[in-house]
Amino acid sequence: MEYYQLKQSNLIDYLQSLPEVQHRFSSFDSLEVQEINDGNMNYAFVVTNTLDINQAVFVKQAPPYIKVLGEDWPLTRQRMTAEMNALNYQSAACPEMVPEVYYQSELLSVLVMQNLSKHVILRAQLMQEQYLPKLAEDLSTFLAKTLFYSSDFALSSTDKKMMVNKSTNQEMCKITEDFVFTYPFEHHEMNDYNPALPQAVIDSIQKNPHVRAQVAQMKHVFMNKSEALLHGDFHTSSVMVNMQQTFVIDPEFSFAGPMGFDIGALIANLYLNYFSHAHRASTESANYSQWLLQTIDELWYKFESKFLSLWSAHEESVQNPFMGKDLTGDSQQTFRYLFLQQVLNDTLGFAACEMIRRILGVAKVADFMQFEDQKFRAKLETQALKMATTMLVNRQSYTNIADVNKLAEDVRSI
Amino acid sequence: MEYYQLKQSNLIDYLQSLPEVQHRFSSFDSLEVQEINDGNMNYAFVVTNTLDINQAVFVKQAPPYIKVLGEDWPLTRQRMTAEMNALNYQSAACPEMVPEVYYQSELLSVLVMQNLSKHVILRAQLMQEQYLPKLAEDLSTFLAKTLFYSSDFALSSTDKKMMVNKSTNQEMCKITEDFVFTYPFEHHEMNDYNPALPQAVIDSIQKNPHVRAQVAQMKHVFMNKSEALLHGDFHTSSVMVNMQQTFVIDPEFSFAGPMGFDIGALIANLYLNYFSHAHRASTESANYSQWLLQTIDELWYKFESKFLSLWSAHEESVQNPFMGKDLTGDSQQTFRYLFLQQVLNDTLGFAACEMIRRILGVAKVADFMQFEDQKFRAKLETQALKMATTMLVNRQSYTNIADVNKLAEDVRSI
Repeated sequence: MEYYQLKQSNLIDYLQSLPEVQHRFSSFDSLEVQEINDGNMNYAFVVTNTLDINQAVFVKQAPPYIKVLGEDWPLTRQRMTAEMNALNYQSAACPEMVPEVYYQSELLSVLVMQNLSKHVILRAQLMQEQYLPKLAEDLSTFLAKTLFYSSDFALSSTDKKMMVNKSTNQEMCKITEDFVFTYPFEHHEMNDYNPALPQAVIDSIQKNPHVRAQVAQMKHVFMNKSEALLHGDFHTSSVMVNMQQTFVIDPEFSFAGPMGFDIGALIANLYLNYFSHAHRASTESANYSQWLLQTIDELWYKFESKFLSLWSAHEESVQNPFMGKDLTGDSQQTFRYLFLQQVLNDTLGFAACEMIRRILGVAKVADFMQFEDQKFRAKLETQALKMATTMLVNRQSYTNIADVNKLAEDVRSI
Repeated sequence: MEYYQLKQSNLIDYLQSLPEVQHRFSSFDSLEVQEINDGNMNYAFVVTNTLDINQAVFVKQAPPYIKVLGEDWPLTRQRMTAEMNALNYQSAACPEMVPEVYYQSELLSVLVMQNLSKHVILRAQLMQEQYLPKLAEDLSTFLAKTLFYSSDFALSSTDKKMMVNKSTNQEMCKITEDFVFTYPFEHHEMNDYNPALPQAVIDSIQKNPHVRAQVAQMKHVFMNKSEALLHGDFHTSSVMVNMQQTFVIDPEFSFAGPMGFDIGALIANLYLNYFSHAHRASTESANYSQWLLQTIDELWYKFESKFLSLWSAHEESVQNPFMGKDLTGDSQQTFRYLFLQQVLNDTLGFAACEMIRRILGVAKVADFMQFEDQKFRAKLETQALKMATTMLVNRQSYTNIADVNKLAEDVRSI
């Protein structure tokens, strides 16, 4: 069978031909196909039984080009193979937070999976100042489990290296290398600046050799540290939530990279959201801002604590711990804290790059773009850029998130 | 054709069947085969025309097991594929220092190559206090070229990732992970201690949580930083020299790893040699010791300078430098120095691990083992271990080799 494009017209027949999907619908005569136009890269559909709307599947297909740009912008379908690889891995490591995959075809680059109709995108919830009491708990679990179980601390040396090779995702990594770590810092034609953002603020990043050098360091870490299998694009629009559940979606940028890149992308987007709540001087917004900072703090220390627990439990169950036998009983713990300190430093460096590129680069965040007043937006952007550059150049000196939160508060109060 | 073992009895016929080798000998009737028993892993032969001893080739074959241990110790022949891959790459990057490959067969895991009859192993020369005026110049060139041209600064993002995947060398990496970074630090049954080495000295490493944690960090860097295509086993017995030429041999441990691992292995073995010259209080030995320190210093700063030159020249020739356009003219240089500072820190950390494992682990160096007096050897070992642990835990604070040389001198004078 050759690759072909799924469309409104052939999708129901295709689904009906799949034994793995047949039992999901009591009838294939009453299905309705709705195309989802949110994504830039891929085609996506929700297929619902109009006789029972609880019977629904989500279908995603990668064409051999970038969907929104068309066939003149080729992009191999390796991204869907990477997404399948990641979903399969994440489902094994943390099944409660990954949509169930009903069927996958590497040949057609198609996924048929659980439709999350009762969940909404995290970013939208944050913009509406919705409290999500399980958020830090759930996302710290997802990060701890997916990052630990794909690291050298859990996998054998050989299995780890096979995982790294299998997870190669060249084109998507190149997109990140360019759009996260390069273009926003070099005054590239792909950038998109708020006209009200003072040139001096842009220059304070693009023309600051110390900042530029540290960004290049983070780019090099991104390209060279194959620490764990990452989601690869872990911002607040890659998470779907409701009061009971949290799901992580869309790992098409997945590859074996530095742990701090996933954690950093997430907290960067939480900090961007934090700056966006400065628009109202209301008690509600002030309280919500505090909840956001508390959530970021909890996210890190819960991640740290869960990662350490998984690590200790794993090493108690095996003959040969990563560092060899601990002859005094405190060598392993010393190494674990050193290791997590390094992950924190990477996290802050990557978070800084993500915050900056969301302001100077082409891909903006709705948290800021909701404000049509360019001058007001420039104020938020300036604050976020100030925080990001400080966090970047001092990243080695932070030992906890409380101090980073303090920086965010200080910057926002200027 | 199936894999089969080359032996004295079938080797000449095999060579005669190879068009790539036929013209190397004026006659195949007068060839003499000499088996070389130096290596532990592989079979090796020198084949010489007795009528003209300038006509000679070196033949190396990897059996599917560890040669010295026999067929009960299986080891895949992937190591020979890795060696071929490395030789081909090194020949392209630095042809004057790599033996010429006449013929290679992945199927038989055979290399037929230039015979280095007029060169001797560097370690032996150092033990005999031979001055080698070109050593630092040549080895810094080899390191700068091979490491730069396989890095993200020279290769495209895609080519680099393909190189990393192609260079996977799981089993040989596992040997290094175990024998360099694990066993020597955990009191493993594979270790081999000089009976005269005080237990307190061994404990000062194996039972020091801070040292253990830092060694584990270096192990993690070794396993996770795919910075450049390494030689992978770059000690002083992997280099052959005479007054005119320097050759680097035996890259069977080659893989994509941290640059500092190659540089560190080399300077570790030079420092071990340095400690071995304490046995005579003669002016000759004192002078030679000074030459060794000077050579290590030159090795680093020449490497640094050549690496920076290759980098600048390369980026002047391309549209898109690694970090993006430099808007002020000093961002790139700032990054390059930061990057090389990190390579120096890695180098010192890896050098420390190598020095320690050559004393506590099973694989010793002749520089020390030449001394039959265990007590005397224990004195050298204690000095080298002292230097290594200090260098390891302070590795982030060194910015040049002169200070490390000072440490070596201080430790040797105790």
